[in-house]
Amino acid sequence: MPIGKAVIGQSGGPTAVINRSLVGFIKEATNQEYEEVLGAKHGLSGMLSEDFVDLSKLSDSQLYGIAKTPAAALGSVRKKPTEEDIEKLISIFEKQNIRYFFYIGGNDSAETANLVSEGAKQIGYEMKAFHIPKTIDNDLLETDHCPGYGSAARFVAHAFQGDDADNRSLKGIKINVLMGRHAGWLTAASTLGKSSEEDGPHLVYVPEKVFNIDEFLKDVKEVYESLGRCVVAVSEGIHNKEGDYFLQTYASDTGSGLAGKTDSHGNIQLSGSGALGDTLTNIVSEHIDGARVRADTFGYLQRSFLADISEVDAEEAERVGRHSVIASLDLQSGSVILKRQLSETYYCDVDVVDLDKVAKNTKDMPEEFLDNKKPYVTNEFFKYAMPLTGGIEPKTQIFV
Amino acid sequence: MPIGKAVIGQSGGPTAVINRSLVGFIKEATNQEYEEVLGAKHGLSGMLSEDFVDLSKLSDSQLYGIAKTPAAALGSVRKKPTEEDIEKLISIFEKQNIRYFFYIGGNDSAETANLVSEGAKQIGYEMKAFHIPKTIDNDLLETDHCPGYGSAARFVAHAFQGDDADNRSLKGIKINVLMGRHAGWLTAASTLGKSSEEDGPHLVYVPEKVFNIDEFLKDVKEVYESLGRCVVAVSEGIHNKEGDYFLQTYASDTGSGLAGKTDSHGNIQLSGSGALGDTLTNIVSEHIDGARVRADTFGYLQRSFLADISEVDAEEAERVGRHSVIASLDLQSGSVILKRQLSETYYCDVDVVDLDKVAKNTKDMPEEFLDNKKPYVTNEFFKYAMPLTGGIEPKTQIFV
Repeated sequence: MPIGKAVIGQSGGPTAVINRSLVGFIKEATNQEYEEVLGAKHGLSGMLSEDFVDLSKLSDSQLYGIAKTPAAALGSVRKKPTEEDIEKLISIFEKQNIRYFFYIGGNDSAETANLVSEGAKQIGYEMKAFHIPKTIDNDLLETDHCPGYGSAARFVAHAFQGDDADNRSLKGIKINVLMGRHAGWLTAASTLGKSSEEDGPHLVYVPEKVFNIDEFLKDVKEVYESLGRCVVAVSEGIHNKEGDYFLQTYASDTGSGLAGKTDSHGNIQLSGSGALGDTLTNIVSEHIDGARVRADTFGYLQRSFLADISEVDAEEAERVGRHSVIASLDLQSGSVILKRQLSETYYCDVDVVDLDKVAKNTKDMPEEFLDNKKPYVTNEFFKYAMPLTGGIEPKTQIFV
Repeated sequence: MPIGKAVIGQSGGPTAVINRSLVGFIKEATNQEYEEVLGAKHGLSGMLSEDFVDLSKLSDSQLYGIAKTPAAALGSVRKKPTEEDIEKLISIFEKQNIRYFFYIGGNDSAETANLVSEGAKQIGYEMKAFHIPKTIDNDLLETDHCPGYGSAARFVAHAFQGDDADNRSLKGIKINVLMGRHAGWLTAASTLGKSSEEDGPHLVYVPEKVFNIDEFLKDVKEVYESLGRCVVAVSEGIHNKEGDYFLQTYASDTGSGLAGKTDSHGNIQLSGSGALGDTLTNIVSEHIDGARVRADTFGYLQRSFLADISEVDAEEAERVGRHSVIASLDLQSGSVILKRQLSETYYCDVDVVDLDKVAKNTKDMPEEFLDNKKPYVTNEFFKYAMPLTGGIEPKTQIFV
């Protein structure tokens, strides 16, 4: 295969360490014989409009700066390519002699890499396509976990430690809404800073279980009556048996004006709004007399806070970026994954699997990570998630 | 004056470093000849119900743990004492032989200390009363700044650095709502991580200026058209010419269901709700076609996040706690303040002023800290606030 150029793009919601993967890629790619190493601005958008930057001439200090920048340094995009997009993309690749395609993102990005790979094969254009995983949602198949999750989990665990101390000092019911439309990994991370059962969060609601508002009210009341306070972690993606988001069904059942805003894809807008937290707050206030009820929605800070990054996550993010280049020396295409080693101290190796194994679906939390009696997580989850955060120091002394 | 016992309480919204003041107090108080050093649980509430803990027998490791705990370790309270409360309090002090009263809090806490001091004088009970300042709102008179503000400002500045990078990578209009009902100090801190004019936040709305929704929309549109994106920092306390909160007037003008929730004091509830951000988002979406508009309300994390504390703030918080005890050796009562030294490197001395100078009013941002042409801050504000955060590293390289 001709050597040609390599191109990389970033896609989907950024993470605090997505640029570590970019820097890992750049460090390894600039060791290869590529004609050029290009970055596409805003992922597919920039590739389709040939909006490229040269990544091969960056200084060490620039790479250091990029590695420490949260969010996608090349810009991101939310775009599923059409057949025409793929055709156009490959014709641009041919014209530019781009032979290596790398895409950092979630399962949609793996799917895009797969479409590029298949599209090129069909017209006999020789090229390779690789997917580099990232997502704070931690919902990619095949990999032990996703780069980006450890840092988001660390932020969430620390946030709950502080917020729980706040709730102890001024008692009441506190509801915090976490990102994760389909899976509860990040919501579950709210528990990682607890040092006793009395610490919050006391209740954890994830999309893996059907949400029922009456049970929720019963649970909250029970904790509140027993401890005089209650801290709750709720995933933005809680839904009913049919899979309809709570906010959606509650709005249509009650005619409440709080919900029902949709994004440009027609999906109900879950992030960048306090609607779910405020709706739950109102319902709890109506049902539990006299309680001080508050909600916070942690929002975009979960994926972008730069001052509390997991070093384990940062190192792995860089390593999957590097490995995508190394893998492309031998393989035609693939998605880089992390494989946990069975050893006393935590370590993950890198490996590569077929793109279509990662592209199609997402991964829920397994049953053994969720308590089967109450809305809570198990010790198995703790063991799985704690190393990814770089370690959370237990919360400290308080008198009340 | 008889030596007797000393008591300390914590009041109002906690901060990330309020327990440093408590530990500073304990370290110094246990060097004195007090009969006992007592902590009151939940401030005035615990004093009135004689719910005390012994603070004199804590180990170094316990003190280390308390210092690192965010939120009020003794528990907090929001309570303005009535005349009867003060009478009852002093009779408890007499019974217990409590001769030293220390109260960590905002201007209401200085007022409480003042009432205690005056009440004791009236009945001829010999005792001393001191106020130790804290508030993330930074709105106390006399002191250069308030312990707690530096850490909150650091969190907010870092949060905006990350969120601005996120907004660059997926462009749109982003509105972030900050704490500070009466003063814009914390909202202004959103600018401290900027390294160029193109970095967000691009617009900063503080309660020191009258808020006008039409001007707001014009400002946002202008930035959005020029940069293709816009990051906005908005104080929860924005209000009209008459001083009515925006959320309140907008709700009554439009009949919108988003606003109008009041807390137990009958004040409109500003914190622990996403209503202001969501309301502004809806209005902007209606006026700027096709823009991706999102809001986050930073909420209680601003006062409780433990993983990103300003070391300058932490040291000063401990020092004002210590100094309250030292001051009580010579003085009858007072409020501890920080006095900035005129030197090349930043340093604040501690001093004490009369309680009534701090008790009555709060401090807005001065005119020289606010741009008089646009919703923004001045370089003077930068110079004032930056040292308090412990320093914010400039944001790093990004391609878009």
